[in-house]
Amino acid sequence: MSLLTGISGPRDLDRLTPEQLVELAGEIRTFLIQEVSKTGGHLGPNLGVVELTIALHRVFHSPADRVLWDTGHQSYVHKLLTGRQDFTGLRTRGGLSGYPSREESEHDVIENSHASTVLGWADGLAKANQLRGVDKHVVAVTGDGALTGGMAWEALNNIAGAKDRPLVIVVNDNERSYAPTIGGLANHLATLRTTEGYERWLERGKQMLNRTPVVGRPLYGTLHGAKKGLKDVIAPQGMFEDLGLKYVGPIDGHDIQALESALQRAKRFGGPVIVHCLTEKGRGYQPARDDEADQFHSVNVIHPDTGLPVSVSGADWTSVFGDEIVRIGRERPDVVAITAAMLRPVGLQRFAEEFPDRVFDVGIAEQHGAVSAAGLATGGLHPVFAVYATFLNRAFDQLLMDVALHRCGVTFVLDRAGVTGPDGASHHGMWDMSILQVVPGLRLAAPRDADQLRAQLREAVEVRDAPTVVRYSKGKVAAPVAAVGRIGGMDVLREAETDRPDVLIVSVGALAPLCLEAAALLDRQGISATVVDPRWVKPVDPELPALAARHRVVATVEDNSRAGGVGSAIAQALRDADVDVPLRDFGIPARFLPHGSRAEVLAEAGLTAPAIARQVTGLVARQEGRLDPAGLGSD
Amino acid sequence: MSLLTGISGPRDLDRLTPEQLVELAGEIRTFLIQEVSKTGGHLGPNLGVVELTIALHRVFHSPADRVLWDTGHQSYVHKLLTGRQDFTGLRTRGGLSGYPSREESEHDVIENSHASTVLGWADGLAKANQLRGVDKHVVAVTGDGALTGGMAWEALNNIAGAKDRPLVIVVNDNERSYAPTIGGLANHLATLRTTEGYERWLERGKQMLNRTPVVGRPLYGTLHGAKKGLKDVIAPQGMFEDLGLKYVGPIDGHDIQALESALQRAKRFGGPVIVHCLTEKGRGYQPARDDEADQFHSVNVIHPDTGLPVSVSGADWTSVFGDEIVRIGRERPDVVAITAAMLRPVGLQRFAEEFPDRVFDVGIAEQHGAVSAAGLATGGLHPVFAVYATFLNRAFDQLLMDVALHRCGVTFVLDRAGVTGPDGASHHGMWDMSILQVVPGLRLAAPRDADQLRAQLREAVEVRDAPTVVRYSKGKVAAPVAAVGRIGGMDVLREAETDRPDVLIVSVGALAPLCLEAAALLDRQGISATVVDPRWVKPVDPELPALAARHRVVATVEDNSRAGGVGSAIAQALRDADVDVPLRDFGIPARFLPHGSRAEVLAEAGLTAPAIARQVTGLVARQEGRLDPAGLGSD
Repeated sequence: MSLLTGISGPRDLDRLTPEQLVELAGEIRTFLIQEVSKTGGHLGPNLGVVELTIALHRVFHSPADRVLWDTGHQSYVHKLLTGRQDFTGLRTRGGLSGYPSREESEHDVIENSHASTVLGWADGLAKANQLRGVDKHVVAVTGDGALTGGMAWEALNNIAGAKDRPLVIVVNDNERSYAPTIGGLANHLATLRTTEGYERWLERGKQMLNRTPVVGRPLYGTLHGAKKGLKDVIAPQGMFEDLGLKYVGPIDGHDIQALESALQRAKRFGGPVIVHCLTEKGRGYQPARDDEADQFHSVNVIHPDTGLPVSVSGADWTSVFGDEIVRIGRERPDVVAITAAMLRPVGLQRFAEEFPDRVFDVGIAEQHGAVSAAGLATGGLHPVFAVYATFLNRAFDQLLMDVALHRCGVTFVLDRAGVTGPDGASHHGMWDMSILQVVPGLRLAAPRDADQLRAQLREAVEVRDAPTVVRYSKGKVAAPVAAVGRIGGMDVLREAETDRPDVLIVSVGALAPLCLEAAALLDRQGISATVVDPRWVKPVDPELPALAARHRVVATVEDNSRAGGVGSAIAQALRDADVDVPLRDFGIPARFLPHGSRAEVLAEAGLTAPAIARQVTGLVARQEGRLDPAGLGSD
Repeated sequence: MSLLTGISGPRDLDRLTPEQLVELAGEIRTFLIQEVSKTGGHLGPNLGVVELTIALHRVFHSPADRVLWDTGHQSYVHKLLTGRQDFTGLRTRGGLSGYPSREESEHDVIENSHASTVLGWADGLAKANQLRGVDKHVVAVTGDGALTGGMAWEALNNIAGAKDRPLVIVVNDNERSYAPTIGGLANHLATLRTTEGYERWLERGKQMLNRTPVVGRPLYGTLHGAKKGLKDVIAPQGMFEDLGLKYVGPIDGHDIQALESALQRAKRFGGPVIVHCLTEKGRGYQPARDDEADQFHSVNVIHPDTGLPVSVSGADWTSVFGDEIVRIGRERPDVVAITAAMLRPVGLQRFAEEFPDRVFDVGIAEQHGAVSAAGLATGGLHPVFAVYATFLNRAFDQLLMDVALHRCGVTFVLDRAGVTGPDGASHHGMWDMSILQVVPGLRLAAPRDADQLRAQLREAVEVRDAPTVVRYSKGKVAAPVAAVGRIGGMDVLREAETDRPDVLIVSVGALAPLCLEAAALLDRQGISATVVDPRWVKPVDPELPALAARHRVVATVEDNSRAGGVGSAIAQALRDADVDVPLRDFGIPARFLPHGSRAEVLAEAGLTAPAIARQVTGLVARQEGRLDPAGLGSD
């Protein structure tokens, strides 16, 4: 590691020879495999960008030049070259973030890890540089997968429209997002990849035409007048140039000299330019290259030599869904599945194997996932769109205006809902139960265990005239929590031992064990508690206000932002029923949460049984102090 | 009108001769000018699609074939040809919707009037047809403007990826959305428009090459192997074909025979195909053609001959903003403006005239508007993104994850917030104050009058480290409402005459006069009321809980969905402060609202002074009945 440890900032790269740069790349790969196998993290993507990152930091001078990363999980090499070489606490509390972080370094800009954003950021930064007369470069590194997202198109259209505004777009083309990139764009990129270098062909074409005395000249004139056309004959990079973007490539993304040369040309160009680099995800690590499915996109702790996981996973929410949707698919030929470039992570792999015609990977395109689902439903099918909860935000307008307004029977399955952990602020799925509250007609289920997930998924796909949502957490499913009774559509998880109990605890989803623990703690204080799981948290169960009225106070507990969440909806339902029992809503504070383990983050948010019991105790005491002296305690 | 009145459904078109079809087109134009000038509506777009709509309904057989319209305001001709010729109540309560409506006709599919959705719907419907073995056609009519939206790109990428799935995309290219279409795509479409027909050139190119004995053959071989390349030399429609979409065009969109011929070819093609039609917005109506700005995109009641408005407008919210942002721009060179293809409708015209370098029209691309604003802010500027409230839903993820997570000083100005009226369900701006509640750090202002709008806009652009939002209604600004006091950051609009008043009314934005009227009605019942305007409704003013505690009940009144709105946020703030005063939140019910006048829709939602006063009276009475007998009335 002699070379790597000598790099404390990008400018230390300037003194290395070409041979040393190749050696450095090797050291970085070894480092990544050793370190990320210990902590888990995005191994495959970073192995693919080692040479590219070195070349970028040689040619551009960060932080004055802005080097921007789409889906920042490909920024590990960038971290190593910008003074961050302690990866021991990667993605754990207090350790390095798995994404760029402005707190960590002035070389980092974009922390959002949702895909397809970088070109929009770059357009804004380039406009600001131009307006303010700042003569520095903006470089955006994006991927072929990210280009399938609508934001990328919107940005390209804007960037291409300003021919005099310098901006370098590096397309890191590894033919994949999580899974192989899909659609017309992927086909077009494939054409570009298989064509010989443009410059050489251009020269050859000119020579050929110039040797033609009679016909060549008029044709050459035509071609000369339509230079783009000639380029397309020889190297059909047409799409980007049709939009007005200079195209350089394709470049071997593992050849540092070739990369530097292309980036230098792009830097000098003075307008928007695309540098198309071909890389291999998982480059240099055989277990990753051998992994057809996702080439070690993101790994847990693994053995560095074999790439095999060190700990064995139990049943997780994703696989419970994945198994059940296959069973449903067998019974219901109208059920089809949609994924936004994450077939395997959302658990649709087995469905795809059994029903290859009935699964649609739409690319990193949540908007299209939702709007095409409206079309599928209108066409007589029942689509199930499985997506990480945090990414549903991209499709809010389509869910509202296309699916819900048109009363389409579409089921959204939200994986990684609530606090997720190591991926940080933009991966916590803490928004869905708030923003979905406003969607008219939508029904939202938060299953508390595997049995409930299976049952509620089945209930969801039976709804033909409204969107349904089933949301669950990341990771392993806890033990089943049995119901001891039923009120309306709600499962009673614990009955208080008195006729007039003190507290009604409304438990949402996987927090049921926590709520039962809080109830037990309250019991020891002499405070009697009922615990119910509404199962469907939207709409509020019509029996809930009357049940609440039989208690002194109500506590709602959810793994979601407190702002406008289930607690707020229940509070409103009580008000509307003129039930003015005091209520306290427990959830995630309305702020961005850092990375850390799920347990750590929940604890910091106050979502622990003791914290909830303590607050409820205080509330009950205050109610007693206020009402009992006046003799209204049991009225 | 003899021909038009004889058309009761699309199949009645089959018996008309080519000459009669031209005559019918003329009748339809006369009808539209006469009728829409009486009611107001989207005149310009519909004048542009008369021939196209006739040709579509001749070639395709709706409703078995699905004829789908993007931004459904271009569906008036479609309505006329599908049995809906009574336009007297257009866009008024009980009359025809200004958009497709499934309640009106089996020929209508998409009601959502947000742009760029149609290709996603079409993709879903085509997939459903294919899976279910339904041998019918799907035809999507979109515009060049709509293609600048990211959803359109996501859909094109999916559509192009399935070569065997028939789908006809009609690009109605009038070079505009509201304003001229922007960006690289617009430049590319311009190239297509100015190129002679592809077929003719292809033939000429082949002949030319075949006459070349020595050089032509290898070159022809190269070209033959890259047929797409040859096409690009001759007619650079490359972009669409690069993606894998068959391209037909450009076609004169006012030549019915040419349109029918092109559509027939497309219908037979058996895969995804684009038919590129050139049309003129406002065709056949000189006042519209003369209107450089937006060619009568949408009109109020006008005189049909002159096109001049019949009623004169007073000051509206939009122009108050438009004037103030110019003044701010003069003082603050770092302030820049962003619009999503609606420069004039959102009031940025004067800013653009005075500061042409400091305004960015990003296309129908709200996502890019928000994410590029994050880049602009990070680059040292203060962007003001002016957008209709309902369209902000498209940018929710970018506002949350790019602007707010990165603590960027960006101001969003939401026009047409709340109940808007004649444009129906997808134009009411009733979601913003709910979904924005979850955004950490965001500050949200709802000015009640013109003075407040000016003041709060200035306060907003002073915030450098968080997103700010200023939202206001559609239409004219009511008279100023003076404050009689100040508590914290809240304006007191009315002080009760007792020390322990009954009701605290929290008024949001333009509903101040309504709240004051409700307070006056309550006063007549002997119920004393304080009225405050928090001005900034997010975060909740820290003085509000203590103020609420000095009242018996609280009523919040907002022009926004009740689900998770300002009322819910205030209720939560009271709970968090242990202030358990009963609260009732008045707002728009969480359902989709029909079209009608703003007053009608508000009344139906229960947002009138008498309705609010009545409910508050009941609540106060119940509180008295419950508390006073126990002697707790003043505690």
